[in-house]
Amino acid sequence: MTTMSSALSPARRARPAAGARAGERAAHLLEHSRTLVRPALADAIGRLHPWVGEMAAYSLGWCEPGGAPVSPPAHGKGLRQALAVLGAEAAGAPQSAGVTAAVAVELVHTFSLLHDDIMDGDPTRRGRPTVWKAYGTGPAVLAGDALFALAVETLAAAPGADIPSAVRHLSTALNDLVRGQADDLLFESRPWTGPEAVRPDEYRAMAEHKTGALLGCATALGAMLAGAPRETVAALDRAGRHLGVAFQVVDDLLGIWGDPAVTGKPVHADLLRGKKTFPVLAALGTSAARPLARLLNSADPLDAADARRAASLIEDAGGRAAATAEAHRHIAVVDACLDSLPTTTGTGTGTTHGTRDARDARSTRSTDDLRALLDFLVRREM
Amino acid sequence: MTTMSSALSPARRARPAAGARAGERAAHLLEHSRTLVRPALADAIGRLHPWVGEMAAYSLGWCEPGGAPVSPPAHGKGLRQALAVLGAEAAGAPQSAGVTAAVAVELVHTFSLLHDDIMDGDPTRRGRPTVWKAYGTGPAVLAGDALFALAVETLAAAPGADIPSAVRHLSTALNDLVRGQADDLLFESRPWTGPEAVRPDEYRAMAEHKTGALLGCATALGAMLAGAPRETVAALDRAGRHLGVAFQVVDDLLGIWGDPAVTGKPVHADLLRGKKTFPVLAALGTSAARPLARLLNSADPLDAADARRAASLIEDAGGRAAATAEAHRHIAVVDACLDSLPTTTGTGTGTTHGTRDARDARSTRSTDDLRALLDFLVRREM
Repeated sequence: MTTMSSALSPARRARPAAGARAGERAAHLLEHSRTLVRPALADAIGRLHPWVGEMAAYSLGWCEPGGAPVSPPAHGKGLRQALAVLGAEAAGAPQSAGVTAAVAVELVHTFSLLHDDIMDGDPTRRGRPTVWKAYGTGPAVLAGDALFALAVETLAAAPGADIPSAVRHLSTALNDLVRGQADDLLFESRPWTGPEAVRPDEYRAMAEHKTGALLGCATALGAMLAGAPRETVAALDRAGRHLGVAFQVVDDLLGIWGDPAVTGKPVHADLLRGKKTFPVLAALGTSAARPLARLLNSADPLDAADARRAASLIEDAGGRAAATAEAHRHIAVVDACLDSLPTTTGTGTGTTHGTRDARDARSTRSTDDLRALLDFLVRREM
Repeated sequence: MTTMSSALSPARRARPAAGARAGERAAHLLEHSRTLVRPALADAIGRLHPWVGEMAAYSLGWCEPGGAPVSPPAHGKGLRQALAVLGAEAAGAPQSAGVTAAVAVELVHTFSLLHDDIMDGDPTRRGRPTVWKAYGTGPAVLAGDALFALAVETLAAAPGADIPSAVRHLSTALNDLVRGQADDLLFESRPWTGPEAVRPDEYRAMAEHKTGALLGCATALGAMLAGAPRETVAALDRAGRHLGVAFQVVDDLLGIWGDPAVTGKPVHADLLRGKKTFPVLAALGTSAARPLARLLNSADPLDAADARRAASLIEDAGGRAAATAEAHRHIAVVDACLDSLPTTTGTGTGTTHGTRDARDARSTRSTDDLRALLDFLVRREM
């Protein structure tokens, strides 16, 4: 597993004992959510056309091409479904109220991985061939579309509070996701320097759209379906969005200084591909950036030695430190959003979800759980 | 323009004078709907990321790659938007009530063309390069996703009656569309004969899902948003679904016996590609089908002379007549659905949409318009 602390060092290093306990609690929360959500998610996938359903199940790490079970399991952490379940709990509702939201966001996440892998031409994910590699580009496009439609159908058919608002929230996240992916693709052909260069604020908007919007939606949607007040929903959405930007920046840090054996990505892949990552953009904005700019602007594509030199120049120009500080700034906003959550949410759902006292106890515990999970994720590992 | 009468002959031939008048009325209804819907559709497209919005506008026939205006215009007929507008009117509401539904279904239709062209590897549409040919596969996947998300957002944000039902209706159509496309792709690798051969009822289900579901949704969604009674919505949906099957069968007929100069497709393309079209499936189900089966089952791919011989054998075995009869059967169901529509719809929207008498007059006129359009489309041209 990729540790975020190594990427964020030397600025910050968690205490090992506390880190181990936080890790256990986060792992427990993630596994608990996966177990809770799995039957409803499997039920949704089971409603798909069998061929398309197999591609979806393959993509979720549940089976091999042809349908045989996977051993060992190849599923992701299921962060988004955990956020949905904990978000519902933070609004004082039982976790089950977050299951519909969890299914919807997990389906959208799977759809976006499937289509992004086509757009980026990525041949592997979690050590297995991507869907377009295993089944072909056309079928992978189709499977993504099916997951997308299924997510909308799941949410539109949900029992609960204000369904039009929930569907609007999800479709806003989807629009943002597409917007972020468009910018990320276009950034690759923009120059490193000059008036057309990518600015840090453009990077932040891209990262918020591409990664943050769906994390925000995941965190907020469970609470929204459970009838949480507007301020709670907004605070949870904002926390998820800033979590997303922090994730993206840390991903950039790991892409340059992470251990390829741990990250699972080839060393310096982003640099070799000319990807506009935050550490490079930050370094190019400093007065020490001239040799880096010369190297990146050279007509020939970078080779491995160039990439090593670029990594060193980025660090010298302060790009690593600036990116680390940027990630910490967004983590601080996540913390502030969680601090702003009322312990008593007063959802007005007392008749269906038990007494007010029981709700308050659940709400307090789950805000703690949410904090534990986010803390662990943003501080310790991706 | 491709005339359906030639494909349906010798079984039926419309009277030329009546046909010309019906053609003028249908052309007027289509143009009127396009004019009515265009501002809202342009407004929706304008909310997209500029690059993605350009691909969407290109796909709609509004611009060239790079954004320059198209001359002459390259837009489609806009059948689905016309169905949505007339469906709303048939429910006694003003046409403007159907505009939101029209925008949503037109966005979904554009999304599905974009992604289908990738899956089918089609390089041209309406005489222009397809989006994946003009902009690349990855960008075309992204533009389709954006249109899909925009359709859902448009509908979820609509004013009006029961939005969750409307969103559910659209997502059911989307799921059906994916299911139909999956079957259509899988049919290509199934054998012509034996227990694994595609049965006519499997074909009908595929055609209803792939083509009928969105036509049904288009026809019903305007009425649904205008608050029409459930029976009206169901009858309009059913009419659109059967219209879709008739369309698909006629498309198959045109693919074999249509004039390539008129259809815009290479001669016998479906036969050369091994596509499981209705005339072939019907012919293979007869006792006269043995030489056809031998030809289709031969190990080598068909050449142009084989395809000509296959077309002749299909006609001899009764495949052309059977497909024509099949199309007529579905047209008869469309007629019956339209006949079942109440002239007084009693939507309960009298306060917003005028007096009951005015509503009834609108409803009667628009049911006539809807009938005129569908009659013309299914009987005269595609």
